[in-house]
Amino acid sequence: MIKVGIAGASSLTAEVLIKIILKHPMAELVYAESEHYNGKKLDEIHSSVMGETDLIFSKFNINEICKNCDVLFLTKDNGYAHLIAEKLKKSSIKVIDLSADFRIKNAAIHKKWYGFEHKSKKLLSEAVYGLPELYGEQIKKTWLVANPGCYPTSIILASAPLLKLNIVETQNICISSCSGVSGAGRNPKPGMNMFMDSYRNLFPYKVGEHRHTPEIEQELKEVAHAPVSVTFIPHLLPVDRGILSTIFFKIKNSISEKALIDVFKEFYVNSPFIKICPTGKFPALSNVISTNFCCIGARVDRTRGQLVVFSAIDNLIKGASGQAVQNMNIMFGLEEDSGLN
Amino acid sequence: MIKVGIAGASSLTAEVLIKIILKHPMAELVYAESEHYNGKKLDEIHSSVMGETDLIFSKFNINEICKNCDVLFLTKDNGYAHLIAEKLKKSSIKVIDLSADFRIKNAAIHKKWYGFEHKSKKLLSEAVYGLPELYGEQIKKTWLVANPGCYPTSIILASAPLLKLNIVETQNICISSCSGVSGAGRNPKPGMNMFMDSYRNLFPYKVGEHRHTPEIEQELKEVAHAPVSVTFIPHLLPVDRGILSTIFFKIKNSISEKALIDVFKEFYVNSPFIKICPTGKFPALSNVISTNFCCIGARVDRTRGQLVVFSAIDNLIKGASGQAVQNMNIMFGLEEDSGLN
Amino acid sequence: MIKVGIAGASSLTAEVLIKIILKHPMAELVYAESEHYNGKKLDEIHSSVMGETDLIFSKFNINEICKNCDVLFLTKDNGYAHLIAEKLKKSSIKVIDLSADFRIKNAAIHKKWYGFEHKSKKLLSEAVYGLPELYGEQIKKTWLVANPGCYPTSIILASAPLLKLNIVETQNICISSCSGVSGAGRNPKPGMNMFMDSYRNLFPYKVGEHRHTPEIEQELKEVAHAPVSVTFIPHLLPVDRGILSTIFFKIKNSISEKALIDVFKEFYVNSPFIKICPTGKFPALSNVISTNFCCIGARVDRTRGQLVVFSAIDNLIKGASGQAVQNMNIMFGLEEDSGLN
Amino acid sequence: MIKVGIAGASSLTAEVLIKIILKHPMAELVYAESEHYNGKKLDEIHSSVMGETDLIFSKFNINEICKNCDVLFLTKDNGYAHLIAEKLKKSSIKVIDLSADFRIKNAAIHKKWYGFEHKSKKLLSEAVYGLPELYGEQIKKTWLVANPGCYPTSIILASAPLLKLNIVETQNICISSCSGVSGAGRNPKPGMNMFMDSYRNLFPYKVGEHRHTPEIEQELKEVAHAPVSVTFIPHLLPVDRGILSTIFFKIKNSISEKALIDVFKEFYVNSPFIKICPTGKFPALSNVISTNFCCIGARVDRTRGQLVVFSAIDNLIKGASGQAVQNMNIMFGLEEDSGLN
Repeated sequence: MIKVGIAGASSLTAEVLIKIILKHPMAELVYAESEHYNGKKLDEIHSSVMGETDLIFSKFNINEICKNCDVLFLTKDNGYAHLIAEKLKKSSIKVIDLSADFRIKNAAIHKKWYGFEHKSKKLLSEAVYGLPELYGEQIKKTWLVANPGCYPTSIILASAPLLKLNIVETQNICISSCSGVSGAGRNPKPGMNMFMDSYRNLFPYKVGEHRHTPEIEQELKEVAHAPVSVTFIPHLLPVDRGILSTIFFKIKNSISEKALIDVFKEFYVNSPFIKICPTGKFPALSNVISTNFCCIGARVDRTRGQLVVFSAIDNLIKGASGQAVQNMNIMFGLEEDSGLN
Repeated sequence: MIKVGIAGASSLTAEVLIKIILKHPMAELVYAESEHYNGKKLDEIHSSVMGETDLIFSKFNINEICKNCDVLFLTKDNGYAHLIAEKLKKSSIKVIDLSADFRIKNAAIHKKWYGFEHKSKKLLSEAVYGLPELYGEQIKKTWLVANPGCYPTSIILASAPLLKLNIVETQNICISSCSGVSGAGRNPKPGMNMFMDSYRNLFPYKVGEHRHTPEIEQELKEVAHAPVSVTFIPHLLPVDRGILSTIFFKIKNSISEKALIDVFKEFYVNSPFIKICPTGKFPALSNVISTNFCCIGARVDRTRGQLVVFSAIDNLIKGASGQAVQNMNIMFGLEEDSGLN
Repeated sequence: MIKVGIAGASSLTAEVLIKIILKHPMAELVYAESEHYNGKKLDEIHSSVMGETDLIFSKFNINEICKNCDVLFLTKDNGYAHLIAEKLKKSSIKVIDLSADFRIKNAAIHKKWYGFEHKSKKLLSEAVYGLPELYGEQIKKTWLVANPGCYPTSIILASAPLLKLNIVETQNICISSCSGVSGAGRNPKPGMNMFMDSYRNLFPYKVGEHRHTPEIEQELKEVAHAPVSVTFIPHLLPVDRGILSTIFFKIKNSISEKALIDVFKEFYVNSPFIKICPTGKFPALSNVISTNFCCIGARVDRTRGQLVVFSAIDNLIKGASGQAVQNMNIMFGLEEDSGLN
Repeated sequence: MIKVGIAGASSLTAEVLIKIILKHPMAELVYAESEHYNGKKLDEIHSSVMGETDLIFSKFNINEICKNCDVLFLTKDNGYAHLIAEKLKKSSIKVIDLSADFRIKNAAIHKKWYGFEHKSKKLLSEAVYGLPELYGEQIKKTWLVANPGCYPTSIILASAPLLKLNIVETQNICISSCSGVSGAGRNPKPGMNMFMDSYRNLFPYKVGEHRHTPEIEQELKEVAHAPVSVTFIPHLLPVDRGILSTIFFKIKNSISEKALIDVFKEFYVNSPFIKICPTGKFPALSNVISTNFCCIGARVDRTRGQLVVFSAIDNLIKGASGQAVQNMNIMFGLEEDSGLN
């Protein structure tokens, strides 16, 4: 059994992670840190696991963690992981960080978009971007995974085959994404996650300034071997969970719709969590909610030279905790979908 | 008092129209046709106006209508208005058709997209596209208004200033729109307007085949004086009403965000139902639900050469019945917002 | 024009009140107090009235208020109005208090349920309980109205005729009420008004300890001329607004359903905001949302000796601000429904 | 492996059942009947199991079924099972009927409430009411289980301990239940399961005439060993699934709240799917959605002599298909919760 620790264990993301770990056949939750709930029972704070664990929240103690855990999930806010990563490296523990601290390779971007001076710059190139469908081999070998953002997960999975195979232009990719309210977390954020803000409503937010933009461009560039520019517009959707991304590309090398669907199928032939819709069918949030699947559909409009790809994920699972467990499975040589079905 | 008749008066669109007319200070509902409910009381079928009218549904009788009404609203399905338009022309009645029959100027498109041979081809050029913000002068003078589709209303209002002033490219305009479920009408449509279809869900529909596409391209071409190509993706949103359109343009002539907002303000300076958001603010459905307003916001990304415009309307009001009454007001020389506040 | 002041003008209740007053044909908003937003523009805080007023929030200044206003609406938290009521009495201003401070006649209940020592005990008997359908005559003559709570409004209106006419037992009345989330106000309340708390959920809250219980029992006793005991269970409903109360009575004097409906119609024959459903029809939230109506339906089960009454209101309008304006209309001799249609 | 057949396999209930059976470690779906979809693939009709089965819908063939299946789930409409039950009895197959045909023991009630002459009257007393928490021993031994209705499940589980132990009066029990829209099934029912009917709404329906009333009274009488009368009011709730019942009892023999909670805990000590809330806590739909649990909470008001019990279930699982599988598990000697966690 893999001994699992979670730091920052009071968040919504952590709750979903705990729920998965508690049912995982090969993992065991041995440590859950929360500054705020130190000493309280986990299942009093996270009602969805009521009666399923006796664990008590602890304070952060890096020695304890490294001694007792095989893997540490970090579900702290951005700006925490980079402070302790060097220390963790010295132990034999594996680390899966769900914050943005090791996603972005360029420390200047951390400073500009996240507002802090990165304290583990050397590790930025060492950390592996934890998108198993693209980086499975590297994930297998690393001790440090940077678990992707929710929007980037949905967008990169939908775009990678097209950019890799040179089917679409790399500039002026237009992305309209809608996310359920859980994307805004559990703590009150005025205008976002109060019921009266979101019910019977839809609106764009952080227009032109969402921090996932540099993450998306970095990763698409990696895939395309060329600079990529995206216009990314997130919207707040009046449901609890799920992300649907609608992505507009300009076609570079013409392709039929059937061939396009085959490209996707081929590209993800070994990826158990990718579902490709048949021609003329497109994903819905309901296809993926409460699962670790990413469902992808596509449409070609050769007359207008445009191609649209749709992708749906559950932001809390494939967009966060499910993907983190998928990464753990790979790091420890388990079946990729262990505990995720 | 303007004497108002409605044909096809049992639909959801008609219900909203009836509600507005019953409170309109200068109009009086004198005739409501429904084949199906002939002889029944209006307020038994339309619970939202219960107790507010004694009117009884009648059968369709064109002579009665022309004798008793000053204006006829047609809220029938597509393919009806074109059959009776020539007859109506011979009377002195004014007609506002809420179907697509007179929106599209090219009869071949009617055949291809709507599946029927148009029987009033001569009137296609005579009918005025009833978007008051663009065609107020023509609406004043015509007897026949083709009331715009809901999506086209939201999209054309958001795009017209940019295309008219040559600020953006006319090709590869990408549009992601989300509509509340009332857009699918009141009759059961499998996969669309059942509660279990839409609740906690979001999905694209009629991808590449929505009939509003030729309407949008026709009207934007009119404004741009050049062919325009759009990729238009509608999505079904789990709310009852409202449309939010997110429209991506490639910038042709660079402009600052402040100047862009001023362009919109200037363009719509005489349009009482257009609200332009200040810089950095963007529309939400909640800004417009239950009103005849269209709320527009915009963002410029000069680095990437992209410009995004957002527009929100209530699909049942500005996207249908409210706009129809706005057209009536103009046709009869009333204040444009009479009965609409 | 009646000059209107509002103290506590930043709340959700105040926003709805402001919206009504701004459209009221005989009233004018001249003063809006908010400690927190002092100096800010009203329409920046309350987006639903954007562009409709230039008013600026002021600090609380009782002399200013009494000099400039004909009526003061108090939308402050419980425990405020009782501190300033004596002073207000000395001026000629009329006061409509939307808090609980003057609803309960017994100061001991204030202490027990609201936790403070009442500072205007003499005024408790002077204040009129502002339910116009029962106390219209007294409201006409008073300077101080205690605007009823939202649940009590829906429950008392549904129960009064039955208790007054001795049709039902006064003990063991069972009430199940469901309220939309706006009942929890705009400020974050853990477990109540966050989107993730309420979406796709329903639950009872404050079971056995909701402060509206003594208010309901006090007022029903008043009507019944006998002690009344109720078991009142409020539930949080995943919609933005509306209250539906389902009230179970034991029949005392047998009555047919038709006669019962007639009792209600007769009782409310002069009440423009009460709608009685015909036999076999029952109220829905959708009948009353965004209106000042209370819609009532009833069912008799003579076999089991039980009678059920349903009532629906919009908690923000008939349950708060609309009723407050209805009270103002009566106090100033206007039509009862002025500005409320 | 238990070989499972389902007749009426195109319904929403059947979809949920199929989903559970496909993941059940000890059961295998071998037969799925649908008149309407005969010849089509299961996973084309039920999108939630897409890719998880190759089964094809068959026509109804009783010999095939009896030859190939160990158990038959009947998810047909009311009025079907009673026509074939005698034939099924002659085979060795076990039958779990999810319709009402064998719930009601009195054939006169079938005639009055369901409108047909029962054709298997002898089997009415043979069939076991499939509420495992009450009738586990009988379920073990029978070949024919009548799976309970959704509302009755939530209500009987909440009431049985109180009636059995003589804590409450048996007359004038008042029940207010709210059900998600899936309770109305998948086929359009005007006024019920269209999105526009239910969104932002709440209303009582079938007041005084819901068919679950005689089922509830029959079963509570069984438990109480005395006639029981209930006033049962169902409401339609704007969520997809879940039932919350709020049940008002008059106290007969006084009891403290703590003792009451202990009564429930004791009564259900061997029932793995019953969760009893601690004192002062009450169930929410979110506690049970997507599970086979029934969550129960209670409140005593000794001053007023009233006691309120709340119970929450997922109507599609514990209220239908989950409970049916729980019954299958018991009938075949498996762990009661096999395949249900």
